[in-house]
Amino acid sequence: MSLPRIAIDAMGGDEGVRVMVEGAALARRRHDKFRFLLVGDEPRIKAALEAHPNMRSASEILHCDEVVSGDEKPSRALRRAKTTSMGLAINAVKTGDCGAAVSGGNTGALMAMGKLALRTMPGIDRPALAGLMPTLGENDVVMLDLGANTDCDAENLIQFAVMGAAYARIVTGKAAPRVRLLNIGTESIKGTDDLRGASQRLAAATGLAMQFDGFIEADKINRGEVDVVVTDGFSGNIALKAIEGSARFVTDLLKTAFTSSLRSKVGFLVSRPATELLRHHLDPNNHNGGVFLGLNGVLVKSHGSANAKGVSNAVHVCARLLEDDITRRIAADLAEIGAGMDAPAQGPAAAIEAEAK
Amino acid sequence: MSLPRIAIDAMGGDEGVRVMVEGAALARRRHDKFRFLLVGDEPRIKAALEAHPNMRSASEILHCDEVVSGDEKPSRALRRAKTTSMGLAINAVKTGDCGAAVSGGNTGALMAMGKLALRTMPGIDRPALAGLMPTLGENDVVMLDLGANTDCDAENLIQFAVMGAAYARIVTGKAAPRVRLLNIGTESIKGTDDLRGASQRLAAATGLAMQFDGFIEADKINRGEVDVVVTDGFSGNIALKAIEGSARFVTDLLKTAFTSSLRSKVGFLVSRPATELLRHHLDPNNHNGGVFLGLNGVLVKSHGSANAKGVSNAVHVCARLLEDDITRRIAADLAEIGAGMDAPAQGPAAAIEAEAK
Repeated sequence: MSLPRIAIDAMGGDEGVRVMVEGAALARRRHDKFRFLLVGDEPRIKAALEAHPNMRSASEILHCDEVVSGDEKPSRALRRAKTTSMGLAINAVKTGDCGAAVSGGNTGALMAMGKLALRTMPGIDRPALAGLMPTLGENDVVMLDLGANTDCDAENLIQFAVMGAAYARIVTGKAAPRVRLLNIGTESIKGTDDLRGASQRLAAATGLAMQFDGFIEADKINRGEVDVVVTDGFSGNIALKAIEGSARFVTDLLKTAFTSSLRSKVGFLVSRPATELLRHHLDPNNHNGGVFLGLNGVLVKSHGSANAKGVSNAVHVCARLLEDDITRRIAADLAEIGAGMDAPAQGPAAAIEAEAK
Repeated sequence: MSLPRIAIDAMGGDEGVRVMVEGAALARRRHDKFRFLLVGDEPRIKAALEAHPNMRSASEILHCDEVVSGDEKPSRALRRAKTTSMGLAINAVKTGDCGAAVSGGNTGALMAMGKLALRTMPGIDRPALAGLMPTLGENDVVMLDLGANTDCDAENLIQFAVMGAAYARIVTGKAAPRVRLLNIGTESIKGTDDLRGASQRLAAATGLAMQFDGFIEADKINRGEVDVVVTDGFSGNIALKAIEGSARFVTDLLKTAFTSSLRSKVGFLVSRPATELLRHHLDPNNHNGGVFLGLNGVLVKSHGSANAKGVSNAVHVCARLLEDDITRRIAADLAEIGAGMDAPAQGPAAAIEAEAK
């Protein structure tokens, strides 16, 4: 089958055009059947493509003058959807010209534009931002929402669980990924009303393509005991950044310790292959690329500070989701859940509610 | 001056009597002027004291049969305040028999009992659980709330900032500790209404004994750029555990890397002094002891899974707060802020509100 094109918001991200184009060029080495639509300032994109002739031959440029800024309110960005690089990249997915879009720009604006242009899938109220994190287990863990929705109710959390499980089935190959809700304790009395409500309804549901294991605390996310961690966007963002910051803190301490004496310096040189492996494992650029799940189309957020390798991973995620046809997979999962529902128009959570009664 | 006694809930914590008594005995080596009231099952406490003759001579035992369980609802625990080891330890502070209490038991029950028995200080609506975390800077960072209050409004957050700054002045010796609110971005539009409201009012306030620097993201907590991180108890607990879990994840990876080849094993042996230093720095037992701030008395929560060294640190925190007379210090800080208020009975946040207008 012929693969759809990938739209790249060439202007998003802290470093802009050069990094986005170089990242896409790197990704293309892994996915050489894909073609690209590069959206942004044409002269700068052309200049960046000088260094990547293979990418140039696989790309079309869509020129525009405007860029969504990092602190721009989503409401303002929405009004500029037809004139900004982010808006036009998403629009290319809406029209079917491309199958997916990647942007390193303002997360709130990206979600607002994505939701308005691509619309949420039937049965989904809000898209969620999902990411992959390394674990001590055999596979990465999917965590969502990572910051798209500050406040979430029980219904949202249940929908996130369904979408996260669908994503995890692609990533892990497991038929029933292990799903847990992030909470401040594992006892059933812990947390907010919404968390307790979502947990009760997921535990009572039957026919879901997941194994729901209740609550998980934030210190267990990386232990390899869970495939999907579900949370609201505020807590998810706090947890994600706390994990990143703590990992960096430990490696910084390690660096200090290893350079504190001649003996430790020698030890460091001897064991460098081991510490290099660690560095590679922890580099956030190797896990770059959050996915907005629940939209009619693939939308990938690259971290604003990602380097070319990081952007390359975000584009790689995009390609993988297109190859696996994630949107159709989630739709199929939702349909399967919906098949047992009393009132299909109310979405999967209503079905779970009905089953729990 | 004669120092007040410290009450120990000998039954709290995952391992119970032996660890609590051994921990207190260890702490007493650092603070040999302190005396203790050990609350719980007398035969078991006596048996545990066999191994610590110095502690035995400095302790009185208060016998009781009942224990608050780990998953007991705070409402139920409250009704058993007069018959449980946790309740009686707190009561000893209420009557003035002791100056402080330490427990490794159920956090929610401890807070509910502490609040009811000791009452919050004038101008404080809710006590908050504050802890210390290591940083790359010169001093530890104070973070609060770590899990006592799941939902917090702007008023609560402002009070936490005032209390956290008072604690940080003791810990860091700084006259105006740097205070920030934990959020999912540093731009003023980020986060919840309560976070934005608290930030605006703290930024507009004058005469506070702190330097308010706005928002901080969770990946910057340990960088040494801030002395107090203020957050609601849900996000604070998530951040704390994510940081602990991530640090453990990295050290586990490191262990794997160092044992992956003969070369790396040799390197590890050579650099062992460096890695031992790291291990010591990251051991959560070295930062054990959360303080409930805002009560009329000192109440310290030891982690349920703490070992004897961890309990010893919690008792050490307790002793340090008594030596520094933290309760009077916070009262003085609140009074100073209150001095500029239009309506002193409304607490410091009302004063800030008034100043902001």
